[in-house]
Amino acid sequence: MKTVGIIGGSGYTGGELLRILINHPEVDIRAVTSREHAGEPIFKLHPQLRKLTDLKFIEPDVEKISSSCEFVFLALPHGASAPVAKRLLESGVRVIDLSADFRLKNKDDYPKWYGWEHPCPELLEVAVFGLPEFHREEIRNAKLVANPGCIATASILSVAPAIKAGMVDGNRVVLDAKIGSSGAGANVSEASHHPEHSNIVRAYKPVMHRHTAEIEQELSLKAGGEKVTVALTPHAVDMVRGIMVTGHSFLRREVTMQELWRAYRELYQNEPFVRIVRDQKGLHQLPDPKNVVGSNFCDVGFELDPHAKRLVTFGAIDNLLKGAAGQAVQNFNLMIGVDERTGIKFAGVRPI
Amino acid sequence: MKTVGIIGGSGYTGGELLRILINHPEVDIRAVTSREHAGEPIFKLHPQLRKLTDLKFIEPDVEKISSSCEFVFLALPHGASAPVAKRLLESGVRVIDLSADFRLKNKDDYPKWYGWEHPCPELLEVAVFGLPEFHREEIRNAKLVANPGCIATASILSVAPAIKAGMVDGNRVVLDAKIGSSGAGANVSEASHHPEHSNIVRAYKPVMHRHTAEIEQELSLKAGGEKVTVALTPHAVDMVRGIMVTGHSFLRREVTMQELWRAYRELYQNEPFVRIVRDQKGLHQLPDPKNVVGSNFCDVGFELDPHAKRLVTFGAIDNLLKGAAGQAVQNFNLMIGVDERTGIKFAGVRPI
Amino acid sequence: MKTVGIIGGSGYTGGELLRILINHPEVDIRAVTSREHAGEPIFKLHPQLRKLTDLKFIEPDVEKISSSCEFVFLALPHGASAPVAKRLLESGVRVIDLSADFRLKNKDDYPKWYGWEHPCPELLEVAVFGLPEFHREEIRNAKLVANPGCIATASILSVAPAIKAGMVDGNRVVLDAKIGSSGAGANVSEASHHPEHSNIVRAYKPVMHRHTAEIEQELSLKAGGEKVTVALTPHAVDMVRGIMVTGHSFLRREVTMQELWRAYRELYQNEPFVRIVRDQKGLHQLPDPKNVVGSNFCDVGFELDPHAKRLVTFGAIDNLLKGAAGQAVQNFNLMIGVDERTGIKFAGVRPI
Amino acid sequence: MKTVGIIGGSGYTGGELLRILINHPEVDIRAVTSREHAGEPIFKLHPQLRKLTDLKFIEPDVEKISSSCEFVFLALPHGASAPVAKRLLESGVRVIDLSADFRLKNKDDYPKWYGWEHPCPELLEVAVFGLPEFHREEIRNAKLVANPGCIATASILSVAPAIKAGMVDGNRVVLDAKIGSSGAGANVSEASHHPEHSNIVRAYKPVMHRHTAEIEQELSLKAGGEKVTVALTPHAVDMVRGIMVTGHSFLRREVTMQELWRAYRELYQNEPFVRIVRDQKGLHQLPDPKNVVGSNFCDVGFELDPHAKRLVTFGAIDNLLKGAAGQAVQNFNLMIGVDERTGIKFAGVRPI
Repeated sequence: MKTVGIIGGSGYTGGELLRILINHPEVDIRAVTSREHAGEPIFKLHPQLRKLTDLKFIEPDVEKISSSCEFVFLALPHGASAPVAKRLLESGVRVIDLSADFRLKNKDDYPKWYGWEHPCPELLEVAVFGLPEFHREEIRNAKLVANPGCIATASILSVAPAIKAGMVDGNRVVLDAKIGSSGAGANVSEASHHPEHSNIVRAYKPVMHRHTAEIEQELSLKAGGEKVTVALTPHAVDMVRGIMVTGHSFLRREVTMQELWRAYRELYQNEPFVRIVRDQKGLHQLPDPKNVVGSNFCDVGFELDPHAKRLVTFGAIDNLLKGAAGQAVQNFNLMIGVDERTGIKFAGVRPI
Repeated sequence: MKTVGIIGGSGYTGGELLRILINHPEVDIRAVTSREHAGEPIFKLHPQLRKLTDLKFIEPDVEKISSSCEFVFLALPHGASAPVAKRLLESGVRVIDLSADFRLKNKDDYPKWYGWEHPCPELLEVAVFGLPEFHREEIRNAKLVANPGCIATASILSVAPAIKAGMVDGNRVVLDAKIGSSGAGANVSEASHHPEHSNIVRAYKPVMHRHTAEIEQELSLKAGGEKVTVALTPHAVDMVRGIMVTGHSFLRREVTMQELWRAYRELYQNEPFVRIVRDQKGLHQLPDPKNVVGSNFCDVGFELDPHAKRLVTFGAIDNLLKGAAGQAVQNFNLMIGVDERTGIKFAGVRPI
Repeated sequence: MKTVGIIGGSGYTGGELLRILINHPEVDIRAVTSREHAGEPIFKLHPQLRKLTDLKFIEPDVEKISSSCEFVFLALPHGASAPVAKRLLESGVRVIDLSADFRLKNKDDYPKWYGWEHPCPELLEVAVFGLPEFHREEIRNAKLVANPGCIATASILSVAPAIKAGMVDGNRVVLDAKIGSSGAGANVSEASHHPEHSNIVRAYKPVMHRHTAEIEQELSLKAGGEKVTVALTPHAVDMVRGIMVTGHSFLRREVTMQELWRAYRELYQNEPFVRIVRDQKGLHQLPDPKNVVGSNFCDVGFELDPHAKRLVTFGAIDNLLKGAAGQAVQNFNLMIGVDERTGIKFAGVRPI
Repeated sequence: MKTVGIIGGSGYTGGELLRILINHPEVDIRAVTSREHAGEPIFKLHPQLRKLTDLKFIEPDVEKISSSCEFVFLALPHGASAPVAKRLLESGVRVIDLSADFRLKNKDDYPKWYGWEHPCPELLEVAVFGLPEFHREEIRNAKLVANPGCIATASILSVAPAIKAGMVDGNRVVLDAKIGSSGAGANVSEASHHPEHSNIVRAYKPVMHRHTAEIEQELSLKAGGEKVTVALTPHAVDMVRGIMVTGHSFLRREVTMQELWRAYRELYQNEPFVRIVRDQKGLHQLPDPKNVVGSNFCDVGFELDPHAKRLVTFGAIDNLLKGAAGQAVQNFNLMIGVDERTGIKFAGVRPI
């Protein structure tokens, strides 16, 4: 039983963390913060939790939380997380940070992709990129885990096997992402206004999207050091949850379906939360966010295009689970040394 | 540990039963039938279960199932269930039937509302109406539980306290229901074609809907024998899951908000799966299917209309859970004597 | 050719007015105002109009507009409209007001339903309730037309024939409305945030909704002076456009289907924008907002419930057209003496 | 005034053709066929047309239609169209064919992409590819116009200027398409079942999609004979109407934004139905199907990716209008020598 805090509990990621952690057998939730809603029962904001918990939001007092919690999940905006993480680490708290503040290894990438100098670059070496499939052992002992971005998770997992096997041209990896509205968080905006967000396919940040940096960092590791260049374009579509990343890359050489299966099985055969989906018949031949929503799974799949000498890859996740809260708990499970699936074994809810 | 079978496992209710039962600590699933898909892994049809179970569909051989299962969930079409239930009961199997075949106590109601004579009317006395909130003790010992209809569950639970307290005119209970497309099942039709089902508010069976019979049966019990007459009109709306039943009834006398709270608390205070929702501020002041989808909760609420001397009631459920598979497992838990919440304690998935 | 202005052109109603008026053969648009967007081309805000008009928003200078326009459409918030209308009328401009400020005949209804005293009650007598089906002759000569509310339009048109024929109990007319998100306008709010507005059935103002007043006013006229009492509850559902009002009223006497047809035909047979929909087969047996979206039609229908002695009525409109901009142009056409259908003859866009 | 027939009037394209043609000032509709619905009023199937036309479906008797119609729109399935077109042409009827049967110039492409030998290859030379922006003069005199595919229209128009200007590598043009459910037509299937089609991002025909052939044919023409290779992957998303094609191509040389504007303006500046959308601020900076739905516009846009040396292009259309019926009428207008915009000048319906 570990004492746990959530700093930034009012958003959608906070809601999903709570949904998971109130039923987690190894967790004793000691603090859930929200500056705006301090004092209110959390079910007032997260109505799905009514009758399941009596927890209330408290003020985000880092000192207090440090003294009562062994682990803290940070669900704060990009840029706001780093200073809080630093103080928590200094008090000996182990931190799972859901922002982008510790994902990049190279401190120069922050001004380039985020527009600000990193306030505590020394921690970038301490932080572990929290993708269990590729950094499991480091995560077990990490003090600070940088939970990957949602688009990044689906991108990296779906493309990595082909990159690792040297099948495709690493200079031209196109990633065309489709993402639900919850990915932009709980804050209202003109773009998220229901009449403006329904029936859309709206590209945003069509070039130079920030997740590019972490995707290239991780894929380059898989490429054995060769620099991978990613061409990412996300689109908001009319759904609340889910991400699909369609990858288009170009074959370096003749590749067979058998080789592809082998490459994907090699990496994911024993992974509890990655499923290879490429069936020959039926409605569910390839990954679709619909089939993972509500779960921590990442479904990956692939297809060969003999005409254009292209490999098409697919990665589908629930952006709030494998793309945020679920993966955070998967990391937490590794850090405390229990079965990685503890508390997040549930299937997706389908149809929805 | 009980041996359990599911007859009719290929539909949406079957999928939800499987999602729950594969994680249920007291259940050993021995049979999942599908005539059409016998031999196929169930995850081919229910892709959310991939990597969570290796079960395959088998042929619906009632003899075999009788000999290997202590309990059977029947998820068959109305009319098809009765003869199968009869054979299972004769073999000593305890049955939870999700069809309408045993919900009505009065055999004459079958020709009236369903258009056919009941093939085994003697079983109508044996069957228990599977609404735990109102028939908990009978369910514990039942051989045959008739799981209520989805619209009926939300209707009965939301209106019953006002009826029981004698607050409203039982002759004119209007129930205006809004329901998602999964309520019509997995079989395709012109009405369920996506271009025809999107952006609709389409009344169907606007009068004489079959669920009227079971709603009147149960509300009349609560009315102390007085016959309650229900005016039900369901509408298909553009969502996949969820039911909202808005009740409009007319006050027999002056009623205060305090009396209403008392009437609802009296019936539901200790109920694990009914939540009274009537807040004064925030976005979640009244029940909304959005807040229960993915869970076994029924949210109920109410409002007084001083202008029209009306009581407005609200009942929201997930039609596949509290309206079908979840409630079936809740009944099963009662039948085997474990905590009613076993295996169905999960919160809704929100936002979705 | 008439000179026309739109005051309040940045919202959804303004967008629809523009879409219609730029193609209207009798209209010369002289002014489209938006305080916030003055100077910008209107297609920046209404991107559907790109390449169709070069008009720009201007500041809302009432004097200037009075001197250049014979007709003004007012698309301002409730309460803000009355003083502007007054000044326009004084300058001899004829006004079509899309707010609620002149819909009610009884000045005491404003404090009761809207919470404020009417600033120019003398104009309430001047104003004509802009429902062409029931006030056509007065509209032709009106100086000031009060365009009806969207829920009100669908409610009044669908129930009026039964009220006029004395078929139903006027004390207990239940109106259960379902409405798309555009009905709440272009301003963002927590309630309109896409993740919070998707997959909902959310009652708002479930009692004492403001449209009650104008519905009762108009239905009472049809009842020959007898006061009609309406019990209205609107629900936000997951669509952008469209309203469905389901009416539940109780029969005063035995009524046949033939009588119903006669009552509806009598009022609507010659109406260009009301269609009676009650077919015996096919998918489109009753009104559905899906079938009117994009058009100025109001589809009305009915069904008899022999069990509960109830009449169920249905009224479906596009809330931005027959519920706002379309009806406003229909009124304008009457005021200028051209064919009522000029510029608004288009069919709905289906499927959508 | 021309006499016109529609063969295959019961589908969604037929519905949109009818919506346009009943208001077209130069059209006298003489025949609308539907084998299944012959004898029924067309508004029974296309309820948006109720009260707008009394036309009835008739049997598809080609002889009769030939003798009464100067022009015929063919909205038949791929493969079924060719023999009918042949007979109509022999009778002197001018034909606008909405199937794929005459789109490809090279008869060998039919076995390759469609799997059958073309039954009348001699007509492939007679047929004109009905994209007015690129074949306007040939269309004016055509006997047989092959209306382009919906994905093809958005693809060709959005990428052509960059290809023509030689800016991008023609061997690696990735086209990632997102398409609404109406694109698959009015016939029901498991894939179109509402619970299975909601909240999806489902790739279908992710490689070797048939539209590849006509896109390559037309882009190669623009490339001055150089063969362009297209890598197309369409995805079904949760909307009814609209297509977005995101193009990812790789720059052959340094390209400036000014050059891009010039290239696009050169081709589309005077086009009535193509709009270049690339704004610097606001919500509508790039094409989005939401902004064209209900209209015949194709919105095109572009963005430069300095990081990956990529050009991102966007093409958005209403698949049933510029992608089918609207473009067919645009072609018809050219064939009869009237203003190309006749009958299809309407703006999109927004928001929806």
